[in-house]
Amino acid sequence: MSGNRAVAYKGPGKVEVIDTDYPTFELKDGPGVNPANVGRALHHGVILKTVTTNICGSDQHMVRGRTTAPADLVLGHEITGEVVEVGRDVEFIKKGDICSVPFNIACGRCRNCKERKTGICLNVNPARPGAAYGYVDMGGWVGGQAEYVLVPYADWNLLKFPDRDQAMAKILDLTMLSDIFPTGYHGAVTAGVGVGSTVYIAGAGPVGLAAAASAQLLGAAVVIVGDLNEGRLAQARSFGCETVDVSKGDPRDQIEQLLGVPEVDCGVDAVGFEARGHGSGAATEAPATVLNSLMQVTAAGGALGIPGLYVTGDPGGIDEAAKVGSLSISLGTGWAKSLSFTTGQCPVMKYNRGLMMAILHDRVQIAKAVNAKPIGLEDAPRGYEEFDAGAATKYVLDPHGMVAA
Amino acid sequence: MSGNRAVAYKGPGKVEVIDTDYPTFELKDGPGVNPANVGRALHHGVILKTVTTNICGSDQHMVRGRTTAPADLVLGHEITGEVVEVGRDVEFIKKGDICSVPFNIACGRCRNCKERKTGICLNVNPARPGAAYGYVDMGGWVGGQAEYVLVPYADWNLLKFPDRDQAMAKILDLTMLSDIFPTGYHGAVTAGVGVGSTVYIAGAGPVGLAAAASAQLLGAAVVIVGDLNEGRLAQARSFGCETVDVSKGDPRDQIEQLLGVPEVDCGVDAVGFEARGHGSGAATEAPATVLNSLMQVTAAGGALGIPGLYVTGDPGGIDEAAKVGSLSISLGTGWAKSLSFTTGQCPVMKYNRGLMMAILHDRVQIAKAVNAKPIGLEDAPRGYEEFDAGAATKYVLDPHGMVAA
Amino acid sequence: MSGNRAVAYKGPGKVEVIDTDYPTFELKDGPGVNPANVGRALHHGVILKTVTTNICGSDQHMVRGRTTAPADLVLGHEITGEVVEVGRDVEFIKKGDICSVPFNIACGRCRNCKERKTGICLNVNPARPGAAYGYVDMGGWVGGQAEYVLVPYADWNLLKFPDRDQAMAKILDLTMLSDIFPTGYHGAVTAGVGVGSTVYIAGAGPVGLAAAASAQLLGAAVVIVGDLNEGRLAQARSFGCETVDVSKGDPRDQIEQLLGVPEVDCGVDAVGFEARGHGSGAATEAPATVLNSLMQVTAAGGALGIPGLYVTGDPGGIDEAAKVGSLSISLGTGWAKSLSFTTGQCPVMKYNRGLMMAILHDRVQIAKAVNAKPIGLEDAPRGYEEFDAGAATKYVLDPHGMVAA
Amino acid sequence: MSGNRAVAYKGPGKVEVIDTDYPTFELKDGPGVNPANVGRALHHGVILKTVTTNICGSDQHMVRGRTTAPADLVLGHEITGEVVEVGRDVEFIKKGDICSVPFNIACGRCRNCKERKTGICLNVNPARPGAAYGYVDMGGWVGGQAEYVLVPYADWNLLKFPDRDQAMAKILDLTMLSDIFPTGYHGAVTAGVGVGSTVYIAGAGPVGLAAAASAQLLGAAVVIVGDLNEGRLAQARSFGCETVDVSKGDPRDQIEQLLGVPEVDCGVDAVGFEARGHGSGAATEAPATVLNSLMQVTAAGGALGIPGLYVTGDPGGIDEAAKVGSLSISLGTGWAKSLSFTTGQCPVMKYNRGLMMAILHDRVQIAKAVNAKPIGLEDAPRGYEEFDAGAATKYVLDPHGMVAA
Repeated sequence: MSGNRAVAYKGPGKVEVIDTDYPTFELKDGPGVNPANVGRALHHGVILKTVTTNICGSDQHMVRGRTTAPADLVLGHEITGEVVEVGRDVEFIKKGDICSVPFNIACGRCRNCKERKTGICLNVNPARPGAAYGYVDMGGWVGGQAEYVLVPYADWNLLKFPDRDQAMAKILDLTMLSDIFPTGYHGAVTAGVGVGSTVYIAGAGPVGLAAAASAQLLGAAVVIVGDLNEGRLAQARSFGCETVDVSKGDPRDQIEQLLGVPEVDCGVDAVGFEARGHGSGAATEAPATVLNSLMQVTAAGGALGIPGLYVTGDPGGIDEAAKVGSLSISLGTGWAKSLSFTTGQCPVMKYNRGLMMAILHDRVQIAKAVNAKPIGLEDAPRGYEEFDAGAATKYVLDPHGMVAA
Repeated sequence: MSGNRAVAYKGPGKVEVIDTDYPTFELKDGPGVNPANVGRALHHGVILKTVTTNICGSDQHMVRGRTTAPADLVLGHEITGEVVEVGRDVEFIKKGDICSVPFNIACGRCRNCKERKTGICLNVNPARPGAAYGYVDMGGWVGGQAEYVLVPYADWNLLKFPDRDQAMAKILDLTMLSDIFPTGYHGAVTAGVGVGSTVYIAGAGPVGLAAAASAQLLGAAVVIVGDLNEGRLAQARSFGCETVDVSKGDPRDQIEQLLGVPEVDCGVDAVGFEARGHGSGAATEAPATVLNSLMQVTAAGGALGIPGLYVTGDPGGIDEAAKVGSLSISLGTGWAKSLSFTTGQCPVMKYNRGLMMAILHDRVQIAKAVNAKPIGLEDAPRGYEEFDAGAATKYVLDPHGMVAA
Repeated sequence: MSGNRAVAYKGPGKVEVIDTDYPTFELKDGPGVNPANVGRALHHGVILKTVTTNICGSDQHMVRGRTTAPADLVLGHEITGEVVEVGRDVEFIKKGDICSVPFNIACGRCRNCKERKTGICLNVNPARPGAAYGYVDMGGWVGGQAEYVLVPYADWNLLKFPDRDQAMAKILDLTMLSDIFPTGYHGAVTAGVGVGSTVYIAGAGPVGLAAAASAQLLGAAVVIVGDLNEGRLAQARSFGCETVDVSKGDPRDQIEQLLGVPEVDCGVDAVGFEARGHGSGAATEAPATVLNSLMQVTAAGGALGIPGLYVTGDPGGIDEAAKVGSLSISLGTGWAKSLSFTTGQCPVMKYNRGLMMAILHDRVQIAKAVNAKPIGLEDAPRGYEEFDAGAATKYVLDPHGMVAA
Repeated sequence: MSGNRAVAYKGPGKVEVIDTDYPTFELKDGPGVNPANVGRALHHGVILKTVTTNICGSDQHMVRGRTTAPADLVLGHEITGEVVEVGRDVEFIKKGDICSVPFNIACGRCRNCKERKTGICLNVNPARPGAAYGYVDMGGWVGGQAEYVLVPYADWNLLKFPDRDQAMAKILDLTMLSDIFPTGYHGAVTAGVGVGSTVYIAGAGPVGLAAAASAQLLGAAVVIVGDLNEGRLAQARSFGCETVDVSKGDPRDQIEQLLGVPEVDCGVDAVGFEARGHGSGAATEAPATVLNSLMQVTAAGGALGIPGLYVTGDPGGIDEAAKVGSLSISLGTGWAKSLSFTTGQCPVMKYNRGLMMAILHDRVQIAKAVNAKPIGLEDAPRGYEEFDAGAATKYVLDPHGMVAA
């Protein structure tokens, strides 16, 4: 095994499938690798043959040129694979295991990992807490939209599926465990969703749909999803959600028509900083719209889960404030209602085992909810393009044709 | 309105429907009324026309003569009704409202009520914390298996249904909110049930079945119900549970056949002190069997929810220890596994609103799960008898024919 | 008893002690009373002879003319008193009881009260969830900086002290239970303070100092208080806090000198919307400064408790955004660190009993921490003035000379 | 470095200091080593030069002959040390670090470790979840009452002190982090102790005293400690606890004299299965006494933390039931009060960092509370003897004279 094929970012609006190196048990220099990470020994890692690897909305931020991602960065942080090589220090993960990889890389040894906060591990990114595969400023770990990928601290990071055949039979569901299913679930949990809740989820992209399916799994009474994109709203309705078309006016009015009251118990922001305005402002980017709107539609005493990404700097921001990550937030609205807010990356490891159990025992159909569609690795550029155009589809790359088989 | 008909305990094995007084806004003397409660003014109460009132397994403890309940005690603590008279001090509940009554009576003013511990209210039972309608040693509040019943502290205790027609359409589900649905749910919650859990519930009576439906609503991956009664086990299977016949040997073996491992994450005791042995000991009462068995089948780090009733004295107990409520418990088994245990009455008010929302929005079919069967008030004696004989049925009394209509 | 003396707001910068009506069991019309509340029957209330009633920083927002408070509004929401008359429907509170009054008025009957969210009770303010005594837009309940005051829903709202003499001996501590001690404690709790935490509290006014004392009570390892006012910082040091003078540069640097790292585990905003800038900007009002600074000094995975008041509209705001309550917040900074945020009024009832126990058993010296100073009711105008000028003092009005005695 | 001295169990009532092997990075066969653990590679471990290692009450169970511990078992699971050799796979712990070792050995890779349940790690004891150093049936890991000891999975298990000199200055406090301080704290936390709680702790041995100091640190209003041993009760009073002499009658009466009510909010069992009776039964072993008594003295709605050890088999038990670990428990007493119970080993890692911070910043004086007394390694037999005789002393072995220095 000496070669590898991978999806790389080539500049704004452009991704390509390139030839690249087969992984080794050392973090080598390359595009976006933090200098302090170069040469890091990875005997605690394993090499995976990628079974599935999904295109994520957060990849699109890079591909749209909204970040400082360098050209030739290998993309991909949603990875499921088969262990083909095991590092010297790995004790419990074995060759042949089929595993899900949490998108957040964690050491399993620092204070935050011990506190289950694996999204902000202190030992994997020299620049700041938290790391991920194939993502700008996240430590420089090589992305997994590739035939093969290295996973460090494998005994800690990997979630092994109990049975190979069972796993392959549900692989389109299980592939969502690496990111969007736990991320949507984290949004729902931190919004306080429980049995009997009414929930409004801003955004019907894959994370919003995963949050909606999660809210149902958590026993929510009513799940309402808001977006501008009719195809995505139809997808939300396909599994029992109510919908709000935010281009057609204030979400409060549409929520009142659904519930009899203009407010919900729980709000989830599955959009983030690239939000657009509501109603007649829908054509324009308006980064604080979603948060301000969620504070209005969430009842006093409620909570907002905010898995949608907000950045510290956005060179492509709509104005000077946006460029430095400043949002004009009506905090008094939330304060008067005693709202609470939870931000940040989902600590995937906190949730992925339970969600795996729910998938394996047919308690949730997440692949169907997000409309998973397997395509070949070589088709990745088309997947990025269609997804960016608003397809109500979650693209799952299948580098070795194992899903197709 | 001057008369009332009610179900009364007449002695071991015997209940009768009797003529009794229409309620007033004062707690009058009568069978089982705590002397210190006699004459208590109840201007904070309302009088309900009973829409439904269910026969409960805990009523059977009294009817079987296993308690010190006095003859002529009016039974019934599972009450749903229409407000027909409103006390002077009631402000928010109105005539005509259809409401669910939590079986635990609470004042809404003491430390425990303020802490949501309404099952152990300090102001309603002169003998000890906690009260209920129609139950021995629970303060002497008149039971609700009757045409009319008084509910004290009505603004605090009652859960008003949002819409009368919607409520009547789902009345067989909503009637379970007064006790067994929250009680089963409390068992599941305190057993730590969450998304992806594996759960073993000891007992397939109405509370066990309600715990099973609750565990599903909470996202459990696998719900296993154990009992000796094949009819009740069949009822559990009817809505997707796995089952264990405890008369056929050690539950561990049967669980291993179902899950591949002999243990579950969460255990619920929905049996209590009238437990029988497992395997060949199934014919004999063995009060500690369920708890000892649950400690064996629950994995290290798990929790046991114990809604099943344990008493401080049981005159009909199988031996001297049982008569004084002493159980021979293998605590070391639980200690070695770091198990935790939660006992006691369910604080219904903590859960009933969310469960009502789940019912109203079709997220759970609790009436079907427990096999609810409406019968006339005059048929109550037959209901008690069939239930005691092990029918896989939850009997719902319909004093005014409102369900039948 | 036919008269009453009370502190009234007379216009920007001006308070006066006026003659006013003795309370009755009805909410009468008057300055700031919500029309829908006029004439409300209050048989569930009691009349208190005010033992102590404190001047609060949030009163200053009104007195400075930063709100729409009408002239003649009777001020005061921090009330401790002796019951002198008991309404018809009150059952457990008795004449002669010495009680603390939570500043948030709550009905004890609505969904939010049942969920312990008494700061956003649904039944006491026709305009929106939540009410308070003597405060603009909070329902129009008459303020308690007066000789006598009515407390509605007395069985629910009042915290009775166990013993009259014991209470009077610690009255300067117990008077803090009505607002600032629970409010500071809520800030600390929602910031995640626990045993061993490092904490930064922005603001050394009475709420900030109460948060600091609370953090110590909760077992914090290091408590750091930041302010511009040297007298208040000295007060913080008097009971073992470290301090940061925000006029002398970035709090991060000063924190690093104290802790060896520039970050703390927990952040509390005890300032709110009238914040001033840091370093050279300290002279200017800069409403988002505190929140943006707290996001910088709080470590990844931490939490921010925000008891400091943020408003939906501030006619006296520094610019157009501030006037409509919009703050320019660097949310990306918080998101990258997975911070959470809790806003809103403290639900006093959740905490006041435990804090009372801590006071009565000498576990905390809150009066000393906030430098409580009793003055006569007639001296209230001077108290307002000195407090507004930055005195490191908590002014406690003593209308009947009971503290002095 | 080729030799080692260690404390070994030699038979009932007898310990000796013996010559033994210097540790290696492999788990070798020896007394009590689980066969499946023999030969296990430990490249993830470090070798510590023991700075301090304490004698624990749970060691006494073995030394008294109440277990199946084999002769020559090297004892000791309370270890603090300096890293002198680092295994091949250790990345973050360095030679020279001074560290606390949690007594529960954990892999940092299994489901339970990921859920912070390090007391029941799945990968370190072939017999069942959970392991410890120098303890019967706990995996066979070599004990640490020795000059040198190996700690496996060092990056995960060790808590590094921030500064060597600071650590040595407080070493008698920090040595309690390996077991009794977190164990007592866990008892308090799981008993629900918080600000303002009243607490009863059964047992004034080191764990009971640590629970008492922990309850104070958590803000408890009143901490009451019960025991038969006047010296230990005096020790409890020395740091502000109230005490109950259980040989002098029912704890309820003595508690009522202290609090005015015969009940507390929170109960801690710091005794376990070797309990003796109360009042006139104090001379006799009565294994269920403590639990039954705690159910009586704990108020409805309370919780019991049970760090005291209960075993699955006790060959030296007082009767047949005790020999198989069966206790005669009045569960109905607890059920009527809705009590909850938490059993099991303390997961030390969940608490040790915060407690270390509290020690380093002078928020707690745990060494003083438990009366720590350093003695030489060679004096261990005397320490065991005095401790068994009831000395109110926590013996700290100082193998290299580093404490004495």
